Amino acid sequence: MLEAEKIKSILMDIKKGKLDIETGLTKLKDLPFEDLSYAKIDHHRGLRQGYPEVIYCEGKSIEHIKGIVKKMLERNSNILATRANKEVYEALKDTTEDIEYNEMARIIMIRKNEIKKSKSKILVVTGGTSDIPVAEEAAITAEFLGNTVEKLYDVGVAGIHRLLSHRKNLDEANVIIVVAGMEGALASVVGGLVDKPVIAVPTSVGYGANFNGLAALLAMLNSCASGVSVVNINNGFGAGYFASTIIKQIDKIK
Amino acid sequence: MLEAEKIKSILMDIKKGKLDIETGLTKLKDLPFEDLSYAKIDHHRGLRQGYPEVIYCEGKSIEHIKGIVKKMLERNSNILATRANKEVYEALKDTTEDIEYNEMARIIMIRKNEIKKSKSKILVVTGGTSDIPVAEEAAITAEFLGNTVEKLYDVGVAGIHRLLSHRKNLDEANVIIVVAGMEGALASVVGGLVDKPVIAVPTSVGYGANFNGLAALLAMLNSCASGVSVVNINNGFGAGYFASTIIKQIDKIK
Amino acid sequence: MLEAEKIKSILMDIKKGKLDIETGLTKLKDLPFEDLSYAKIDHHRGLRQGYPEVIYCEGKSIEHIKGIVKKMLERNSNILATRANKEVYEALKDTTEDIEYNEMARIIMIRKNEIKKSKSKILVVTGGTSDIPVAEEAAITAEFLGNTVEKLYDVGVAGIHRLLSHRKNLDEANVIIVVAGMEGALASVVGGLVDKPVIAVPTSVGYGANFNGLAALLAMLNSCASGVSVVNINNGFGAGYFASTIIKQIDKIK
Amino acid sequence: MLEAEKIKSILMDIKKGKLDIETGLTKLKDLPFEDLSYAKIDHHRGLRQGYPEVIYCEGKSIEHIKGIVKKMLERNSNILATRANKEVYEALKDTTEDIEYNEMARIIMIRKNEIKKSKSKILVVTGGTSDIPVAEEAAITAEFLGNTVEKLYDVGVAGIHRLLSHRKNLDEANVIIVVAGMEGALASVVGGLVDKPVIAVPTSVGYGANFNGLAALLAMLNSCASGVSVVNINNGFGAGYFASTIIKQIDKIK
Amino acid sequence: MLEAEKIKSILMDIKKGKLDIETGLTKLKDLPFEDLSYAKIDHHRGLRQGYPEVIYCEGKSIEHIKGIVKKMLERNSNILATRANKEVYEALKDTTEDIEYNEMARIIMIRKNEIKKSKSKILVVTGGTSDIPVAEEAAITAEFLGNTVEKLYDVGVAGIHRLLSHRKNLDEANVIIVVAGMEGALASVVGGLVDKPVIAVPTSVGYGANFNGLAALLAMLNSCASGVSVVNINNGFGAGYFASTIIKQIDKIK
Amino acid sequence: MLEAEKIKSILMDIKKGKLDIETGLTKLKDLPFEDLSYAKIDHHRGLRQGYPEVIYCEGKSIEHIKGIVKKMLERNSNILATRANKEVYEALKDTTEDIEYNEMARIIMIRKNEIKKSKSKILVVTGGTSDIPVAEEAAITAEFLGNTVEKLYDVGVAGIHRLLSHRKNLDEANVIIVVAGMEGALASVVGGLVDKPVIAVPTSVGYGANFNGLAALLAMLNSCASGVSVVNINNGFGAGYFASTIIKQIDKIK
Amino acid sequence: MLEAEKIKSILMDIKKGKLDIETGLTKLKDLPFEDLSYAKIDHHRGLRQGYPEVIYCEGKSIEHIKGIVKKMLERNSNILATRANKEVYEALKDTTEDIEYNEMARIIMIRKNEIKKSKSKILVVTGGTSDIPVAEEAAITAEFLGNTVEKLYDVGVAGIHRLLSHRKNLDEANVIIVVAGMEGALASVVGGLVDKPVIAVPTSVGYGANFNGLAALLAMLNSCASGVSVVNINNGFGAGYFASTIIKQIDKIK
Amino acid sequence: MLEAEKIKSILMDIKKGKLDIETGLTKLKDLPFEDLSYAKIDHHRGLRQGYPEVIYCEGKSIEHIKGIVKKMLERNSNILATRANKEVYEALKDTTEDIEYNEMARIIMIRKNEIKKSKSKILVVTGGTSDIPVAEEAAITAEFLGNTVEKLYDVGVAGIHRLLSHRKNLDEANVIIVVAGMEGALASVVGGLVDKPVIAVPTSVGYGANFNGLAALLAMLNSCASGVSVVNINNGFGAGYFASTIIKQIDKIK
Repeated sequence: MLEAEKIKSILMDIKKGKLDIETGLTKLKDLPFEDLSYAKIDHHRGLRQGYPEVIYCEGKSIEHIKGIVKKMLERNSNILATRANKEVYEALKDTTEDIEYNEMARIIMIRKNEIKKSKSKILVVTGGTSDIPVAEEAAITAEFLGNTVEKLYDVGVAGIHRLLSHRKNLDEANVIIVVAGMEGALASVVGGLVDKPVIAVPTSVGYGANFNGLAALLAMLNSCASGVSVVNINNGFGAGYFASTIIKQIDKIK
Repeated sequence: MLEAEKIKSILMDIKKGKLDIETGLTKLKDLPFEDLSYAKIDHHRGLRQGYPEVIYCEGKSIEHIKGIVKKMLERNSNILATRANKEVYEALKDTTEDIEYNEMARIIMIRKNEIKKSKSKILVVTGGTSDIPVAEEAAITAEFLGNTVEKLYDVGVAGIHRLLSHRKNLDEANVIIVVAGMEGALASVVGGLVDKPVIAVPTSVGYGANFNGLAALLAMLNSCASGVSVVNINNGFGAGYFASTIIKQIDKIK
Repeated sequence: MLEAEKIKSILMDIKKGKLDIETGLTKLKDLPFEDLSYAKIDHHRGLRQGYPEVIYCEGKSIEHIKGIVKKMLERNSNILATRANKEVYEALKDTTEDIEYNEMARIIMIRKNEIKKSKSKILVVTGGTSDIPVAEEAAITAEFLGNTVEKLYDVGVAGIHRLLSHRKNLDEANVIIVVAGMEGALASVVGGLVDKPVIAVPTSVGYGANFNGLAALLAMLNSCASGVSVVNINNGFGAGYFASTIIKQIDKIK
Repeated sequence: MLEAEKIKSILMDIKKGKLDIETGLTKLKDLPFEDLSYAKIDHHRGLRQGYPEVIYCEGKSIEHIKGIVKKMLERNSNILATRANKEVYEALKDTTEDIEYNEMARIIMIRKNEIKKSKSKILVVTGGTSDIPVAEEAAITAEFLGNTVEKLYDVGVAGIHRLLSHRKNLDEANVIIVVAGMEGALASVVGGLVDKPVIAVPTSVGYGANFNGLAALLAMLNSCASGVSVVNINNGFGAGYFASTIIKQIDKIK
Repeated sequence: MLEAEKIKSILMDIKKGKLDIETGLTKLKDLPFEDLSYAKIDHHRGLRQGYPEVIYCEGKSIEHIKGIVKKMLERNSNILATRANKEVYEALKDTTEDIEYNEMARIIMIRKNEIKKSKSKILVVTGGTSDIPVAEEAAITAEFLGNTVEKLYDVGVAGIHRLLSHRKNLDEANVIIVVAGMEGALASVVGGLVDKPVIAVPTSVGYGANFNGLAALLAMLNSCASGVSVVNINNGFGAGYFASTIIKQIDKIK
Repeated sequence: MLEAEKIKSILMDIKKGKLDIETGLTKLKDLPFEDLSYAKIDHHRGLRQGYPEVIYCEGKSIEHIKGIVKKMLERNSNILATRANKEVYEALKDTTEDIEYNEMARIIMIRKNEIKKSKSKILVVTGGTSDIPVAEEAAITAEFLGNTVEKLYDVGVAGIHRLLSHRKNLDEANVIIVVAGMEGALASVVGGLVDKPVIAVPTSVGYGANFNGLAALLAMLNSCASGVSVVNINNGFGAGYFASTIIKQIDKIK
Repeated sequence: MLEAEKIKSILMDIKKGKLDIETGLTKLKDLPFEDLSYAKIDHHRGLRQGYPEVIYCEGKSIEHIKGIVKKMLERNSNILATRANKEVYEALKDTTEDIEYNEMARIIMIRKNEIKKSKSKILVVTGGTSDIPVAEEAAITAEFLGNTVEKLYDVGVAGIHRLLSHRKNLDEANVIIVVAGMEGALASVVGGLVDKPVIAVPTSVGYGANFNGLAALLAMLNSCASGVSVVNINNGFGAGYFASTIIKQIDKIK
Repeated sequence: MLEAEKIKSILMDIKKGKLDIETGLTKLKDLPFEDLSYAKIDHHRGLRQGYPEVIYCEGKSIEHIKGIVKKMLERNSNILATRANKEVYEALKDTTEDIEYNEMARIIMIRKNEIKKSKSKILVVTGGTSDIPVAEEAAITAEFLGNTVEKLYDVGVAGIHRLLSHRKNLDEANVIIVVAGMEGALASVVGGLVDKPVIAVPTSVGYGANFNGLAALLAMLNSCASGVSVVNINNGFGAGYFASTIIKQIDKIK
């Protein structure tokens, strides 16, 4: 672990007299993140967690987002900005060349370093056409984090044969992300067909007693199929990220 | 309509002078139900709705239930007492010979008149073994109301092939009752496979964020399959009764 | 069943040597739906479920809706597009001649084939004037699916005599759809007056502790009258469709 | 107003020099309630509000209840103890002769002074037999507070003619209390039939998505009939008390 | 009762041979309401309930509202249109001279007949300045229904002395309407000070865990003071109307 | 206590005959607040609670706000107007010179009297950048009430070292306000690190099953760390004010 | 800060060569808590937070509680065990002499060291008699943590004069804890009377739409009085502890 | 895939004339599960999903459970029976020798075949001692499914150093299961420290506004740390199973 190394070298310097104790004490407390006054940018997170910097844009002023991105760019990080509306993109698009915007998924990607692809496979499945924006958020996130992603859209349980005819896709994946609104039954059906991690993403697609995705959320949490876990409503990013942590464990072991 | 006939004959009697106006007025207001002071027994309901008397036992004192049953027996009605625990049965079992108790479904049946069976078919399907008590309540209710009932239990979506291998049962039924707890996905899958009325009964089977059946209820209300309607949580009786009203329409037309 | 026939003929071909096993295996898995990449159109649904194609427009991009409609038109299907705002209609109206838009019900109808009317009758009842849009969604859906629909609007329980004076309409219907907001009491009153299926549609009409239709939904699920089942809040389409599956059973038997 | 008189006489005494200022100040602050350390008994409440003392027993230890009752008895008050289980009654029954217990309503009544009856009339109506305990709490409370109470039980909306045949009772009452569980529709129907105050009491009778009376509570709050107000779930006491305040206004004016 | 009289005279005519039975039967069923196809106008309601016609505008199209008003005007009724935005008023203001609009309360009043004032008094109290629109809805409704209304605004419990210094107003009223948002505590405090009916109106004033008035609603339903009943959130009209039914009982007795 | 003094002097005057009893009685009831008809301005609150006047602007008309401010200015009070949008500020900015607007915190400050700073310290901490507007509301409120405020923003638990490296700030504060949305875990972590009052402010930052801050609110109420209390969602003002009452106790004792 | 001292001395030892680097590294990570395998006892918490050890008993097996207590006793700590039923006390009472049990508050106290009393005052106020157990939990907790506690019970808002006559108690306290169920209005009224920290504790006293304290919780969070913060439902311990952190700040400064 | 192989061989037999078409058709539909009438046992699930049979005991009658277990034993499966109370164990313990019961976790294990251990590691972490039963359910499930499990209990965020001192355990695991009640903050803190899949299990430990685990559930779904997914409240089994599917992917790749 990196930090252990750092602490060791501080101790070494103290031992050798290169460093007086007060300074050593201060250094020990001085973890490597940068202060923008309104945002602590955590450059070490890449090291600690092995991923690019992520900015969740909703609720942040454009000024703040811009400031954060610029600081990150100084360190040449790859950047993923989620929940970014067009206005955010317009404000950022001239800050760097390597910027790209996916409007449906509301994601801005800034690629400063090449992203190596894992050969393990993540399959993203949706119940309906209306679930696609959330699915795309998941897919793009996973791809940006270095994964191979396959998609199987509009295979909801109202026409179960549509799903059954794609068993091969299910069988070939290492991790499956199921994105579904309304009653969210797709997660249970997929979970019953495979023996691999199924990450369920409830969407707010639906109306009436759907309560903005609560119906699908509760259904997925109560799935009668084992091997299903759940992320927040519409949280495509979270599903893509979580799937990615699994692939990293697979690749690490190989 | 019976009541119209009755009013007509009252008017006739007034016209003919057989009846003075005040008495006529009173008679017009005098609808045929009996008063037990704590319960108005509605003997006409059988006529009006074509079914036996039903007593919902929960929350009623045993004294009250007994009084109601005795009054009904005087008119020789068939009686269905739902949500009846063993104690209620013990209190009632000596009031009449034709009494029968189904403990799992918590139903008491008193058969005073022969029940003619319809040839149309109601299929009762459950997701799991734990849903069976509610399913039995539905099945017994429907049978007592004169229907042919078939059962297909434990075919939940976690093993979708179990359901798919019974397509013939689904195809042969006129009405399907789907009883399921947890995420209630079975209603959607069945609803997607058939072109007939699917009555969904959420059960309180499950735990945690199931909230006593709320998860299944919301899922069923939000079913992505068309042709699904829903009754209250654990309301097997309601589903059996509703299915029965459909069969009556089918039989009436024939 | 159609699919069984199809499988049989595949097996026959294999037996006769007309088909090698690998191709047969693939064919067996090849169910007849078409792939638009963002939407699997299920042309067989018409066969399987006996109805026209339905598109739920909310949450779908206009581009997607247009693509789906075009593909369907190639097969000359009747199409019902629900929750369609005016913008969707504007985008579609030049794709075909037989298109019609009902703005109050937010429904687009494309009639490519004549719709035969059943003689059985569906009655749509509303509590108030504000419930009419949802009632119209139900009525138009049912009519488009080949049913005879009658309407009885603004007969809520605050003036119970308005409903009672229409007993004849209630008596003549085979299925009754009750559309009501606020406290949704109309479903119980109607359910107590008839011996036929009553489909309750809670609407979000009301304010304060109505919680967008939750009050009516809970009231309807808890109806003290038997013979009532419920669909989702504002789900006029679902009620019309469900009513239609009942009529189909009636007609089938005849 | 009593207190004004009291203050006046204190001021008079100060003016006359009978009272020094400090004592006057203290007296002004000294409102007439008694201190049991664990309960401030408010003997003036009878004066201020014109009613007997009321003890809500739930959650209080028997020791506390006993202490409160004894103190009240010293001042010879009429006492109404609500939500009193049998154990409480057993503990109290030897403290005074004039004690009476109604087990169904869970009310203990101690009559130390004669209660004069108003001639105005309160009608208590229930939807079903299971609602009777709450209705009795309302009826007994109202009677103990000096009102004439009439009862009309088991006239729920599933058989609307039962209610309609009792229009005379509705017409003769000055205030109507409607006690109903399940979907609570009775309040709306009664409210639509009369032009007088209707006090709705939701009960927790029901199951599933009834959520312990929430369904009836929401329905009653959303009543489409005007002239309906609501008290808490199962709060028979509150309804009886509120009805009583209305009768007091009527009687006062007369 | 009017209707009884009417029925009697029909019976008389039958007896006398002035009326044949079939026509008599029809007449008996023919209750006096008019059909606009989209709205049943209930002209008898005025007779039955003693009040002007009321239109709840929210959710109704302007076309519908206009049609209803015109029909009512033909019978020269007083009309109260609640939840009417400015657009509705603009559409109606030329239909009659006697029209008036109160924008804050969102109420349109059409006075065709003189309104006699009761001498009994209704006091409308608010917790804060933001509760005034709802309070005005209550006050105007009560006045339009023939009551004397007094107002006491901005006396919330955060400065309890503001309320206490107005005890005289409280003491002089026959009915008190308490309008309060946030935690709704004012209803309990007023309820504890008086011995008369207190009608609590929760408002949606507040934020965060106020949940659009739910906090105040629950608080008021759980009031520790007796003599408090509750209407729906923001339902100023309901409170004014309910208060008015009480005053009518008072005046009737006099 | 001021009021006691006042009452004493009234009594004195009565004793001395300077004041007749009726006038004295009236004076005793005459607490010092001013009546604007739509708002009771409570000038004594400053005395009673030791703070400037506060206006909560949301839901108040600009006319009302303006009237309240003008009245307050006549008495030369410091004024804090919270939840004030720009439009409110525009309407007020010419009424006085000493007015200042903080747009992010939506606060208007009018300084008529010098504000003395306490030396005790309030630390405002946020989980993320999006929580800053609420934090600023807290900070500005506390400063306006005479406190020394320090800020530590964007130290959420996803990077716990960011917080841990600021232990000194935590250690030096007398009261800590923790502002956090999403899962609100920061309050528990801070509460576990210090032995001083931690005031938790849940924010509505987040999405999906966050339910507008409910997730953070519940988390904070259930904090496993002792020494944490909670104010309403987004209630920065409340936190700042509450912190200020603590500092006043500290300063009073000194 | 203690830990800083410890780290310094480790660094010193490394500098002096008394300690090799690997051991130093390990020591730095070795924070002073003890491992019982099922519970990490945090002996330093006393140092870090200045309080005795606290055990929350609910949900812990008696075996576990016993083990934890024994380990703590070895270090001679004062121990406060909350939510302890009688069975727990029976199991513990022989482990040490200095043990005491308060059954109403469900608290076990073990006093191994003298507790010095602060002179600052905490006042605990309740709305009703039923709130006393929670109030006692708060009072005992605060006393055990070294505070002077005064009590004012049963002064709820239904009889506001009971509270008003105790203004002196309110004025003399430094911190006020308000414990109230039902509608929780007492917190707002107290908050409006004083200028000091008011800690509101909602209790689950009540019924119906009280939802186990939710009504009081929401009311308190939405208090219209400033200077009120809230702890969890029935969390007397939390309120006592939080009040104690305030007193510690007061005493520290002195 | 096994099933494909099977279908292939059926086709082969048809081709070769060993099998007539009708029998082939039947065989194709004949999926390998056994019918107990009340439960379809799915023996293929082991093959399809690679795991032993699992019985969820809650809500099943002992008779049913016994029947299911016996049938499974005939095929010599390993069996995991969850949510099994002691009564269930008593009923089963004589059916086979290899049965074992863990009372804390309420799990029955029947080992008929050796379970090979994976070398990948699952770490189970709890916030408090009260969370241990759920954690044990997770740990035992994972072990029974062939995984190496390590435990780290009672390291909740109220004493964050307890967790931080175990970073090595966190770093060595492949998957981490975090079990926490109250505010569930531990999941976020752990999620922020590692770059591997964190499976959060909310428990119902807590009281008041915890709402049986809802507070922790919402907090975990809203975790500000990426890489966290959630299973149902108290669903230790689900977490153990899900973790196991991840390990299987890791091992498969190796």
